[in-house]
Amino acid sequence: MVRLAIDMMGSDEGPMPLAKGLKAFLKENDDVEVVAFGAGKDLHPLLDGVRGASVVETSQVVPMEVSPLGFLRLKDSSMYQAIKASAGVGFSGVVTAGSTGGFVTGATLLIKNAPGVLRAGLAAPFVTAIRGKKTVILDIGASNQNTAEELVGFAKMGSLYAKNVLGVQTPRVYILSNGVEEGKGLAESVKAYRILKESSFPGFAGNCEARDALDGNKDVIVTPGYPGNILLKSIEGTAGMLGVLLKKAFTKNLFTKMGYLLAKPGLKGMKQTLDYRSTGGAILLGVNKVAVKAHGNSNDYAFYNALKVAYSMAVSSIVGKITEGMAK
Amino acid sequence: MVRLAIDMMGSDEGPMPLAKGLKAFLKENDDVEVVAFGAGKDLHPLLDGVRGASVVETSQVVPMEVSPLGFLRLKDSSMYQAIKASAGVGFSGVVTAGSTGGFVTGATLLIKNAPGVLRAGLAAPFVTAIRGKKTVILDIGASNQNTAEELVGFAKMGSLYAKNVLGVQTPRVYILSNGVEEGKGLAESVKAYRILKESSFPGFAGNCEARDALDGNKDVIVTPGYPGNILLKSIEGTAGMLGVLLKKAFTKNLFTKMGYLLAKPGLKGMKQTLDYRSTGGAILLGVNKVAVKAHGNSNDYAFYNALKVAYSMAVSSIVGKITEGMAK
Repeated sequence: MVRLAIDMMGSDEGPMPLAKGLKAFLKENDDVEVVAFGAGKDLHPLLDGVRGASVVETSQVVPMEVSPLGFLRLKDSSMYQAIKASAGVGFSGVVTAGSTGGFVTGATLLIKNAPGVLRAGLAAPFVTAIRGKKTVILDIGASNQNTAEELVGFAKMGSLYAKNVLGVQTPRVYILSNGVEEGKGLAESVKAYRILKESSFPGFAGNCEARDALDGNKDVIVTPGYPGNILLKSIEGTAGMLGVLLKKAFTKNLFTKMGYLLAKPGLKGMKQTLDYRSTGGAILLGVNKVAVKAHGNSNDYAFYNALKVAYSMAVSSIVGKITEGMAK
Repeated sequence: MVRLAIDMMGSDEGPMPLAKGLKAFLKENDDVEVVAFGAGKDLHPLLDGVRGASVVETSQVVPMEVSPLGFLRLKDSSMYQAIKASAGVGFSGVVTAGSTGGFVTGATLLIKNAPGVLRAGLAAPFVTAIRGKKTVILDIGASNQNTAEELVGFAKMGSLYAKNVLGVQTPRVYILSNGVEEGKGLAESVKAYRILKESSFPGFAGNCEARDALDGNKDVIVTPGYPGNILLKSIEGTAGMLGVLLKKAFTKNLFTKMGYLLAKPGLKGMKQTLDYRSTGGAILLGVNKVAVKAHGNSNDYAFYNALKVAYSMAVSSIVGKITEGMAK
């Protein structure tokens, strides 16, 4: 039985879409039980009588832009309580759509790092130019700066994730840099390169430039958190800008509109490939439980996918495998 | 009279397209003279008899991935000689399509920083979601790390560029960060924020996340070189990936192909908005002459635009204005 603690109050859209995604997920997986944390008046009507779901009432909600200290003061928030519960015996992990900062603070302090993990890394699977092929990038913002040794830890954890959860035999692992040659990049990345090379790290394939990150030929890309966050957000920003321009292009006149209608089946496939909601959000690798952060503007489908990610992580025993791998 | 030193050997495509762009540029601007550096056997047939052009023969070519030391050893290369010449009396500046590393090393050492400039910054105008509206981002890779004081210098130089060359009355200046609130981001960026705020820097508008960098509402975005380079390349990479997916979408079947044909006029406008060749490449702000780095895969149109950028910079006396502004 997989038991998950769920923060129901984290979405910009309120608990309704999360409950819808949760119900769809529970219907498909009868080996799952969840404890849902949030406002009783919202959750009881949505979840009472749903197989596998129980509600724990909390009185506070963590705002999106919470500081670490601010988060720690909100002890009766749905996020704090869900993370705390997930750290207990019998729970596999936690899922939230709330503040990334609160999530990282809470998971690090309440669940704690697995033995041998210097720093937990926030990872996300990115869609690429190859349909169905995902690239895991970490850290995308749990830290700002990371040491070479932490980067090596990210390489190990990312590789274990790609192997055990995504099913890649020998994941190809890269270091994000501003040039492919050895010696290019930040001092800590250059040092991490040397350590991975000298230890013959399985699948280590050198540096990767940001422009090639999404070509579909990489399984794992390792970076300190600050540039990782810039990478994540500039991908989002560029995709958003192109979406705006594409819309303008198609609505230029009657003919372009007709063109859109004809091309729609192809464009739909493209949209599916790009749909970030299908990736289920970000995961914090290196803590003692499964910890999944769904997108803040999660609809039911996005939250359903985040729950599926948590479930795959739980059944693949990724936390145990990371603990084992990091002890080596 | 504007006199420019031109490195003719820097393009992946050879000197031919550069010469074509150069000739078109000289035809339009009879107040310009250029000295073209490169292999005599290539350049004489292309440029002899062209009004305003003279050739200086050089024997070496700087490879794309040159190290700073490697560059300094290639003293008879077209790039070294062009940069060196541009530092002399009577020259306004230099244009090259060659190695960015060689260009930055050469410009910094041979042309030298203007008085009061702690660090030259590599800047590029980016196309945005608003047609015709460019955002200048610096540094995009002259340095890896920068101090807060260097970032403040970038803010000044970027603002002077946007005002004097792009014609923006009071440029809106942002600091790239991983959150919009004051206090978010790298230590040096947080400090630069404080300095700009406390000095009431004209147009300073706070932090900007990478996802909003290209929304068209920013004139200048300041960042240390390493994350700036990640930003630049992930924009390129994401745009490239979406281009691949879009092509797949339109070639899915006969109907999508017809759709493409109908939508083409709209898509063409989009392509023009996105055409990086129209921006003319990157510029090194803070050295004593105009220094423009055209795209390495420059065609004639891209190189023509790079020359136009150098010309606008020369006639706007941006170097003098930066020297003046930085002394304040």
